[in-house]
Amino acid sequence: MPVTPEQQAEIDALRSAPRQTLRAVSEGMESHLYTAYPVLDHGFVRVIDYMGDDAAICQAARVSYGKGTKSVQNDEGLIRYLMRHWHSTPFEMCEIKLHVKLPVFVARQWIRHRTANVNEYSARYSILDREFYIPAPEHLAAQSVVNNQGRGEALTGDEAARVLDILKSDANRAYDHYESMISEDGQQGLARELARMNLPANIYTQWYWKVDLHNLFHFLRLRADSHAQYEIRVYAEEICKIVADWVPFAYRAFEDYRMGGETLSAAALDCVRRMLKGETVTQENSGMSAREWRELQEVLG
Amino acid sequence: MPVTPEQQAEIDALRSAPRQTLRAVSEGMESHLYTAYPVLDHGFVRVIDYMGDDAAICQAARVSYGKGTKSVQNDEGLIRYLMRHWHSTPFEMCEIKLHVKLPVFVARQWIRHRTANVNEYSARYSILDREFYIPAPEHLAAQSVVNNQGRGEALTGDEAARVLDILKSDANRAYDHYESMISEDGQQGLARELARMNLPANIYTQWYWKVDLHNLFHFLRLRADSHAQYEIRVYAEEICKIVADWVPFAYRAFEDYRMGGETLSAAALDCVRRMLKGETVTQENSGMSAREWRELQEVLG
Amino acid sequence: MPVTPEQQAEIDALRSAPRQTLRAVSEGMESHLYTAYPVLDHGFVRVIDYMGDDAAICQAARVSYGKGTKSVQNDEGLIRYLMRHWHSTPFEMCEIKLHVKLPVFVARQWIRHRTANVNEYSARYSILDREFYIPAPEHLAAQSVVNNQGRGEALTGDEAARVLDILKSDANRAYDHYESMISEDGQQGLARELARMNLPANIYTQWYWKVDLHNLFHFLRLRADSHAQYEIRVYAEEICKIVADWVPFAYRAFEDYRMGGETLSAAALDCVRRMLKGETVTQENSGMSAREWRELQEVLG
Amino acid sequence: MPVTPEQQAEIDALRSAPRQTLRAVSEGMESHLYTAYPVLDHGFVRVIDYMGDDAAICQAARVSYGKGTKSVQNDEGLIRYLMRHWHSTPFEMCEIKLHVKLPVFVARQWIRHRTANVNEYSARYSILDREFYIPAPEHLAAQSVVNNQGRGEALTGDEAARVLDILKSDANRAYDHYESMISEDGQQGLARELARMNLPANIYTQWYWKVDLHNLFHFLRLRADSHAQYEIRVYAEEICKIVADWVPFAYRAFEDYRMGGETLSAAALDCVRRMLKGETVTQENSGMSAREWRELQEVLG
Repeated sequence: MPVTPEQQAEIDALRSAPRQTLRAVSEGMESHLYTAYPVLDHGFVRVIDYMGDDAAICQAARVSYGKGTKSVQNDEGLIRYLMRHWHSTPFEMCEIKLHVKLPVFVARQWIRHRTANVNEYSARYSILDREFYIPAPEHLAAQSVVNNQGRGEALTGDEAARVLDILKSDANRAYDHYESMISEDGQQGLARELARMNLPANIYTQWYWKVDLHNLFHFLRLRADSHAQYEIRVYAEEICKIVADWVPFAYRAFEDYRMGGETLSAAALDCVRRMLKGETVTQENSGMSAREWRELQEVLG
Repeated sequence: MPVTPEQQAEIDALRSAPRQTLRAVSEGMESHLYTAYPVLDHGFVRVIDYMGDDAAICQAARVSYGKGTKSVQNDEGLIRYLMRHWHSTPFEMCEIKLHVKLPVFVARQWIRHRTANVNEYSARYSILDREFYIPAPEHLAAQSVVNNQGRGEALTGDEAARVLDILKSDANRAYDHYESMISEDGQQGLARELARMNLPANIYTQWYWKVDLHNLFHFLRLRADSHAQYEIRVYAEEICKIVADWVPFAYRAFEDYRMGGETLSAAALDCVRRMLKGETVTQENSGMSAREWRELQEVLG
Repeated sequence: MPVTPEQQAEIDALRSAPRQTLRAVSEGMESHLYTAYPVLDHGFVRVIDYMGDDAAICQAARVSYGKGTKSVQNDEGLIRYLMRHWHSTPFEMCEIKLHVKLPVFVARQWIRHRTANVNEYSARYSILDREFYIPAPEHLAAQSVVNNQGRGEALTGDEAARVLDILKSDANRAYDHYESMISEDGQQGLARELARMNLPANIYTQWYWKVDLHNLFHFLRLRADSHAQYEIRVYAEEICKIVADWVPFAYRAFEDYRMGGETLSAAALDCVRRMLKGETVTQENSGMSAREWRELQEVLG
Repeated sequence: MPVTPEQQAEIDALRSAPRQTLRAVSEGMESHLYTAYPVLDHGFVRVIDYMGDDAAICQAARVSYGKGTKSVQNDEGLIRYLMRHWHSTPFEMCEIKLHVKLPVFVARQWIRHRTANVNEYSARYSILDREFYIPAPEHLAAQSVVNNQGRGEALTGDEAARVLDILKSDANRAYDHYESMISEDGQQGLARELARMNLPANIYTQWYWKVDLHNLFHFLRLRADSHAQYEIRVYAEEICKIVADWVPFAYRAFEDYRMGGETLSAAALDCVRRMLKGETVTQENSGMSAREWRELQEVLG
């Protein structure tokens, strides 16, 4: 249960008290505000605040291009043009602030996206809760045999049972020891900033994360991708749904040009042009390595 | 006149159409939204959007510090604590988007603050207006005789008149020629991206500028400082007034700890400690250079 | 003449005094160090310092991937893999520091790339030289009739002569007046920070610019592109030649996957797949706008 | 033992093969290159590469200020002036690349400094070693009773023994289970990207970390400070020693103006001025809170 009754009461109170503003309002986003969408077994994503909407992207672009932008008749056309031609600054004019609860090993991947603002719960200052990510059986995957950095089918039978048992019992023992080390009951108690070192990487942390739409799209392209680790991908997918309601034109353009698009190298483009002229192109005469050729075949279906 | 009647009508329309939101609202900021505050002879600053308020700073800090922050009784105390101890991330959780019209030589200083989002009017794409900054007589300052990077008293008499005449006539001639070069009347017309090179640095440009509160404070500390060039300082001062209404607690802490504060070096601290013990400290026995000693005397009044 | 005899003497002295170092050395880059390569009529690019080489990219990647990277047999294969899969952090491990002299309107475009370190000559502090960019006749281009943000053929005849005359005489008049305003001969002299506002955007400035290889590639992809304005493109092209000698494997991968590559949208990929199956695809049944269809035709040759 | 014989052999080989370069060379830094300085029980810091020296800072400043900088007679004076007046860009012209081995909970603090380049060993891709940070007895500190975010005296007797035993046995059990879960001996083997979640935060990771001197100084001011957690402070202190040899002028200025300096608020400055005039200032008439007053007393000794 990712949200406590107290948290739910706070969310309900915030959601029941609309106020007046002169700012740009995205109706699609208002319907998501504060709601904690569950992710994994104890995590969540919820929107704390946002700035701007599709119109704000266009407004910023029109400052840049002045009267010239009048030639693009409507907002969606302009947004698609901006996305297609990598004009990123108008997308930076929208901002989102999320509250995320997530396992530490996911947080460690996430934080590598540096162009964002973060306030994380401090285990140096405060005491962490007893909440650990334990994969659902269907996500308890074996190591991939073809890709160092990937996973294969789910484990089954005894092996799956053994792994689940280890993860659960080690997490609980680590937390029991964490509690007993910091306890001030009949002893001094170890400093929190030291005791936390005993906790495993599947413990949950939480943070406020604020990012502009351009950098969020970059995050989503990498983390909602099928090659991303499942445990971060589910967060990215949940955020995708929210963004689709916040800035529908921008999100559709992102889906078409970024998520669904592919970058072809000069060599790959040359092959495609030759194929379209009717030439039979093989790996041997493609000028590409076996690996690149295989990747191109996948792109071309 | 920095705002055209059309722009004013647009501003009035925006200001007359409040909408409902569930987000944090700063009443002090709502009263500023869209209003163009004049700066210099043709410039302005106006707020297009904002995210967060004083409470949002505290909310982010409380995510970081958990229950620990309860020991600070109230929001203003917490904000002062955060500012005093350089805990900058909670201030990054607020964001502001400004529309600024400013001379190019001011824009060139401003853009050196890299942690911000910018959409500038493109003179490659569009045609600039005939608007130039001409200093008011009291700001037509002579070169400082003590500081390479400063200015002295205002010029007077014939010299002032000559300078004003030069600035006005050169700007107008440059713009006449700009117009005639891009004209397509009876000729091809020079590319805009080339013609703009004839325009002087006092021509006005405009941009959308979006920045978080921490980085805005850093900008204001440097640019609202008495050593900043007058022509950028007046923008910073206008923004200060807006921020004071947006996040009053944070702004007061900023004034006390940053704008009004001073950093003393180890050597300067040592001198102050000796003085407070009653010792007579002179530059000779201070361990400081003549210049550092003079700067310390100014700080100590 | 972009380099004065004094500057050339300084360059010659630096180039004649090699020292010993234990750091990674790129022989290809050493041959470029300090040499000022002329760009435009008075500009130049020269390398002041660099960090790393192709091997340093691989070394950083191998820290990340540990023994796993042994499956990629050699450095060039690894670098191509990293570039193809957008693994950007190993490229960030190389750094370059350039000294660039360039017109102000080019500097204004250049500075929009925020992830870099810059020290620019201060016209607030010092006096600018009388050097202006005047386009060569073949680069005195007309406004494009199809693209707001582009240029067409070179102007010819009287129009070209008129434009050149305007650019030259306005620049010289502006500089004469700049000099006379700051002169302290028989008058106080206007502050430098004010006098500079009279100077047009084709005056030359200079700066030190330091950037990592990943962000440099991003700069080069945008600015060495055929759609970039000629006056910044020539700088980018000069830098490309230097980078090709500094990190030859990385540069070749960049050329193949970035400069020579193209990103196809989901809709465009769908069209290509249908074409390869033998289907006749037209704009009407492509699901793309006329503009996107035209752009795809260009990509497919 | 933080460095394996193989690593030491590699270091020795690199250190025995100087090459010629035309770049700026810091003799003080050359003597540190590649040497792994032990930190904590299994960690280290070693310099992989660097760019620039004290002279490079001055050279960049002189591009900015042109002939004006001649008034500062020597390099050290100029560097002190730049540091005192927060002119940060010349310090950004130096760069350092470190290889650091450190516990994960230290890495999590470190990474919050966003303006740096990082390549971390990937536990998704590779297998982590069995190396955990176990505090030395004198660093096994109790929770502070006055500061949530601090530590008190070292634990002693049975409590210390119990804690050490827990940390060691939990780490070993976690690693044993990590190994058994990823083992492919008689089973499929759990994906590495999942198995790592069982490992505690005191396991060692390693990374390449590249940062400019300005941002490094910011890191050192916060992390070499007495309020920083001991386990990151020892890394910062080791880096301080290296920087002192790399850029001795800049490091001395940093020590005087940053590490040894203090920022006084407007209210604190007012108190100091009144005290120096002979007035008796108490918390009651200081205009400061009890906490701020206490902090001021500490600063004034």
